[in-house]
Amino acid sequence: MSAAFKPIALTMGDVAGIGPEIIAKSFLEAADQTAGCVVVGNVLAMQRAIQVVHDAYPSEPQLTLLPLTQLQDLPREVPALTVPVLQVSPDGSAAALPAWGRVSGLAGQWAADAVTWSAHAALRGDVSAIVTAPLHKEALSAAGVPFPGHTELLQACAAMHARVAVADMPVRMMLANDELRTVLVSIHVSLRAAIEAVTVENILQTLRITHQAQLRATGQVPHMGVAGLNPHAGEGGLLGREELDIIIPALQQARAEGMWVSGPFAPDTVFMRARSTPDQRGEFDVVIAMYHDQGLIPVKYLGVDEGVNVTLGLPLVRTSPDHGTAFDLAGTGKASPASFLAALALARKLAG
Amino acid sequence: MSAAFKPIALTMGDVAGIGPEIIAKSFLEAADQTAGCVVVGNVLAMQRAIQVVHDAYPSEPQLTLLPLTQLQDLPREVPALTVPVLQVSPDGSAAALPAWGRVSGLAGQWAADAVTWSAHAALRGDVSAIVTAPLHKEALSAAGVPFPGHTELLQACAAMHARVAVADMPVRMMLANDELRTVLVSIHVSLRAAIEAVTVENILQTLRITHQAQLRATGQVPHMGVAGLNPHAGEGGLLGREELDIIIPALQQARAEGMWVSGPFAPDTVFMRARSTPDQRGEFDVVIAMYHDQGLIPVKYLGVDEGVNVTLGLPLVRTSPDHGTAFDLAGTGKASPASFLAALALARKLAG
Repeated sequence: MSAAFKPIALTMGDVAGIGPEIIAKSFLEAADQTAGCVVVGNVLAMQRAIQVVHDAYPSEPQLTLLPLTQLQDLPREVPALTVPVLQVSPDGSAAALPAWGRVSGLAGQWAADAVTWSAHAALRGDVSAIVTAPLHKEALSAAGVPFPGHTELLQACAAMHARVAVADMPVRMMLANDELRTVLVSIHVSLRAAIEAVTVENILQTLRITHQAQLRATGQVPHMGVAGLNPHAGEGGLLGREELDIIIPALQQARAEGMWVSGPFAPDTVFMRARSTPDQRGEFDVVIAMYHDQGLIPVKYLGVDEGVNVTLGLPLVRTSPDHGTAFDLAGTGKASPASFLAALALARKLAG
Repeated sequence: MSAAFKPIALTMGDVAGIGPEIIAKSFLEAADQTAGCVVVGNVLAMQRAIQVVHDAYPSEPQLTLLPLTQLQDLPREVPALTVPVLQVSPDGSAAALPAWGRVSGLAGQWAADAVTWSAHAALRGDVSAIVTAPLHKEALSAAGVPFPGHTELLQACAAMHARVAVADMPVRMMLANDELRTVLVSIHVSLRAAIEAVTVENILQTLRITHQAQLRATGQVPHMGVAGLNPHAGEGGLLGREELDIIIPALQQARAEGMWVSGPFAPDTVFMRARSTPDQRGEFDVVIAMYHDQGLIPVKYLGVDEGVNVTLGLPLVRTSPDHGTAFDLAGTGKASPASFLAALALARKLAG
């Protein structure tokens, strides 16, 4: 491996879900996009996924798996239809592979192993970016992994690498598709807890992380449109005071720090206004959403196929498809790799 | 006026906003749709709006205003390009007309007068439906009107007419466009208060009102998809317990009453799943949203031009465009009547 060659790591996700097969389909359908990528996970699980895809599409050419035990063995040029897989978990046996569509602690452990290995490889500079296939939160929990999902796991790795507390490595989730980009102040907490998380500090942190990440990615100061928390952005206090007491002061501070922010706007129209179509560019480069569903409802409304999740704030590039493990589809070979390929394309762009 | 002829009342809304001019443009651009309609409000304000539209589109034919002081004087056939306007407020003078784009108590009072008159006319059976142009909540408040908006005003009129308490005349707001219909458990309250309004009784009431209204409008039992309150619909209690403790019991009760309900579903995908396109019918006939923005973000995402607001639960038909007074546009003649015309078309359909 030449010093200049940094592959993109594709983590396999939960092997009981659609992760391995959408990766296999990506290598089958988009060889130009998967060039320079290495799958990180489990060789046997990946072999099973390749077989599933072959069974589902018998007239398509067969993929070949190239097993690797260390990244240094990855050839710079991998032949077309070859899937290089770096084994980072104990081998196991084909018979012991977690069943499709079932929560399994083993699958949870493998998924965490792949993400942890890839995070450290990215932080060391051995890979240029990470694209993560979906994992299952319950499987992670069954494995005793003390993090609820990818974001928290990556954050912990980055904090360890930088030798800082996790609280000093704040991250935010950005959801992006062709039309819209949104960054969320909070993610996987109840709506009640999300309201409590609307603080000046959390909003400012979200704005700073978004500003810096977009500036780095595009070279331009992003125009951030900020949603209110309440209907009609509170309507001057009639429908809630968080806009007056929290959001507006946070925006004033952000402006004082040189950021380009507008709002708070009525949540029910800010996403429509930010939407970019072939005919018209949206009013904002990114919308700051006050809670999970406020941002995810519009991003997903036109379909999840093209949605991409980007983790902002970490000293590494990580993207993922905007869908879950789809246990009901797993093992059929039918799942679409479109969102995974969109995530890969964006990771490549962000990695420069 | 023959006994069988029941016009549709078009209330002018706040005369400082775009209401009068979108009504004028409707008469100009869609004479077939405005046939059998009467504008309810203020003659001088409507005359001003007609002039504004003429100034903006001087090559279009000029509209003529037909002033009326009682509904009985409305001809069954009104000539094309003629706008019949029933004066229901004191006359005033052209000089005293509320200025464009400014909050005015006078405009608030006129707007309330038009809605109140139309509600009683509909309840008496003198008009078949009401289509309301937007009013401004602050103007209503400045006028001392003790209701925050159309819905509450109409509810009070209906309760008075039926001689019941307002609490016994529950209403719900449905938002509809070509792709999606959603009914909201609560509307104009803070997000904190909206969470408190997620009760078994409020959800059941929403389901009952929606079921009955859709059954009446279409003759078929509607399939109602119910959104959760929390991200991922609470993920089994990990992200909030309202789904387990409140929403699921409400759905069980609704099923016991013979309704067709599914859910609770993850809020970020239920609207995508309900979306009907020319290629594919959505999974649900209507989505029950737990709060204002949950339902309004997806309905408005593709643009407000075609969005229509329907008040369900009242013994009258009332629709309205899915936009506000647009004070910034008022007086330019540029506002689009598309949403108002969509509201009129739906009102005509619902009035049977």
